[in-house]
Amino acid sequence: MGEKIDKFNQFRSAINEKLLGANNLGIKRFFNLDTQAYSDGVLPVKIKELLGLVASCVLRCDDCITYHIVQCAKNNVSKEEFLEAFNIVLIVGGSITIPHIRRAFETLEELELDGALERAVANS
Amino acid sequence: MGEKIDKFNQFRSAINEKLLGANNLGIKRFFNLDTQAYSDGVLPVKIKELLGLVASCVLRCDDCITYHIVQCAKNNVSKEEFLEAFNIVLIVGGSITIPHIRRAFETLEELELDGALERAVANS
Amino acid sequence: MGEKIDKFNQFRSAINEKLLGANNLGIKRFFNLDTQAYSDGVLPVKIKELLGLVASCVLRCDDCITYHIVQCAKNNVSKEEFLEAFNIVLIVGGSITIPHIRRAFETLEELELDGALERAVANS
Amino acid sequence: MGEKIDKFNQFRSAINEKLLGANNLGIKRFFNLDTQAYSDGVLPVKIKELLGLVASCVLRCDDCITYHIVQCAKNNVSKEEFLEAFNIVLIVGGSITIPHIRRAFETLEELELDGALERAVANS
Amino acid sequence: MGEKIDKFNQFRSAINEKLLGANNLGIKRFFNLDTQAYSDGVLPVKIKELLGLVASCVLRCDDCITYHIVQCAKNNVSKEEFLEAFNIVLIVGGSITIPHIRRAFETLEELELDGALERAVANS
Amino acid sequence: MGEKIDKFNQFRSAINEKLLGANNLGIKRFFNLDTQAYSDGVLPVKIKELLGLVASCVLRCDDCITYHIVQCAKNNVSKEEFLEAFNIVLIVGGSITIPHIRRAFETLEELELDGALERAVANS
Repeated sequence: MGEKIDKFNQFRSAINEKLLGANNLGIKRFFNLDTQAYSDGVLPVKIKELLGLVASCVLRCDDCITYHIVQCAKNNVSKEEFLEAFNIVLIVGGSITIPHIRRAFETLEELELDGALERAVANS
Repeated sequence: MGEKIDKFNQFRSAINEKLLGANNLGIKRFFNLDTQAYSDGVLPVKIKELLGLVASCVLRCDDCITYHIVQCAKNNVSKEEFLEAFNIVLIVGGSITIPHIRRAFETLEELELDGALERAVANS
Repeated sequence: MGEKIDKFNQFRSAINEKLLGANNLGIKRFFNLDTQAYSDGVLPVKIKELLGLVASCVLRCDDCITYHIVQCAKNNVSKEEFLEAFNIVLIVGGSITIPHIRRAFETLEELELDGALERAVANS
Repeated sequence: MGEKIDKFNQFRSAINEKLLGANNLGIKRFFNLDTQAYSDGVLPVKIKELLGLVASCVLRCDDCITYHIVQCAKNNVSKEEFLEAFNIVLIVGGSITIPHIRRAFETLEELELDGALERAVANS
Repeated sequence: MGEKIDKFNQFRSAINEKLLGANNLGIKRFFNLDTQAYSDGVLPVKIKELLGLVASCVLRCDDCITYHIVQCAKNNVSKEEFLEAFNIVLIVGGSITIPHIRRAFETLEELELDGALERAVANS
Repeated sequence: MGEKIDKFNQFRSAINEKLLGANNLGIKRFFNLDTQAYSDGVLPVKIKELLGLVASCVLRCDDCITYHIVQCAKNNVSKEEFLEAFNIVLIVGGSITIPHIRRAFETLEELELDGALERAVANS
């Protein structure tokens, strides 16, 4: 029940805390810039998160995809919108992206389980 | 004056015509699917073209970037919106994308020249 | 006994069915084009599957590699032929492909188990 | 008349000579292994060169593509076979490969000019 | 206790032995060249292993990262040096490398456990 | 005479100035972080620039390679050290990096021309 996302978020939080606690200033600042890049601007958060999702899909990083799917869902990206974004991923990135799209689709299904989105957003 | 884009569009059209004339059905159908992926749906064309642009930037293909910049500009993506999209590219894809962002920025400047956008749209 | 391939094929079939049932026409058509690209033509299926395998290896996608290994084996690619293809992968793609070649080799060994190839082909 | 290929081969030969003359043993040995990987084995040279071409296309390296197109043509890969290979490239690697396929197609056309293949083979 | 690294090294050794026993001369020679590339030269082993680590991180291969972390640790790369190298990875490769850096950091922590480095070096 | 590097540096400076003048705070901050990542720390500048060079080579970005070659040369990386670094690039990244190594080698030769390094450093 929502296991994959929960597990990812727990690992992510635990290691991020240690990594940022290790006091490399450059790494800390990069993490700040990363957060700021998706904040509201002339492009709304929803669109920026979709951009982050598509970038993560064509670069084929499952953890990044899981993260941005949660943020997209939190910002009301609908299933149909996810599918149109995945279609662009498929076209630009080719069949090599299919295994990642399959796992992304499985993540989407997990998010439909009771409480999964709320829990994922709280932990991200 | 708008030279880079014009040259790209001429080469693109000339070879596409020959390539699609070579009668490989799979290639022809792929080109059709490619066009359809950016048509209006639950996500508007403007957002889809931004998704295509960001995907092209993180995968670092200058020709693809030029193509999607023209389509974005045609769909009223503003300079500020382009910059926020490039910022996401930088964060997701790192400094290795900077040379492509520089060339993309140069393309944006070309599009501001008299008639460049109109000509580019007509030829794309 | 052939566990890795069986598990992959089960997950692949289950999610593909849901994904294609989600009614995004572009995604469906892409999956069709994907299947057709490997059908018999002026290049025989065996060679096309080897091309798909090498492309999957240099792009480093384990699921894609597993899929094409099964198709290659079904089309009588021999162990020596697999090794010569992996050598080309190593040369073109470098040592970064080694972990994928190791897992590919493990998959090859699984296919030699009783009934593994028959089961894999039936489910792919 | 066959300019692009001639220019590529001249630059390639000139720098390879200097680079291999610089006496780094590892680099020299790598170049030897590279040559040997495409020699006749259980897979014939023609198939190995097609594998090298498809790998070069999905990894999107224009110089590598030019090199393997010449070797494929020398080993009697027909235009229809090239197109079926490019179709697989498109499917596996997506639209991001299209600009490379366009330039590859242009190279194919150059090879049809009088003497271009003979000259390219002599210089490669 | 040091489980991830131990598991990786066992799988790596077991399959490498079979793979190199399969008698493809090109693959064997590539493995030799790979080992030699990191041997002492005008650049010391420690720097070469750091180069291998950074290359593995930006190309995003977890197994390669684990391997080079062990070699770096064996050659006295300090935690602060690892972090400065990871900072360069983040800048060059972007946020898409973060999940790999997280797993790399977890590997570093494993190496601090009693006997983990000694065991890892013995098995690598 | 040193033309390639001069041209690159002029284009780089001209567009960077415009891009950073366009007032996207995220992009500006990223450029600052980028510069800082290569400053003296527990790892000296010379090693950091070598790490940046190898990362740029395996990710295959000619402009990034040119930039880091100049920085490496300025920090007294010798020709033999460059070659050992390129050997690691070849091993990790495969033959697909060869065209980039050839162009990198050409850049190295340009730097040996009278005044080329001084001019390149002044403009970078």
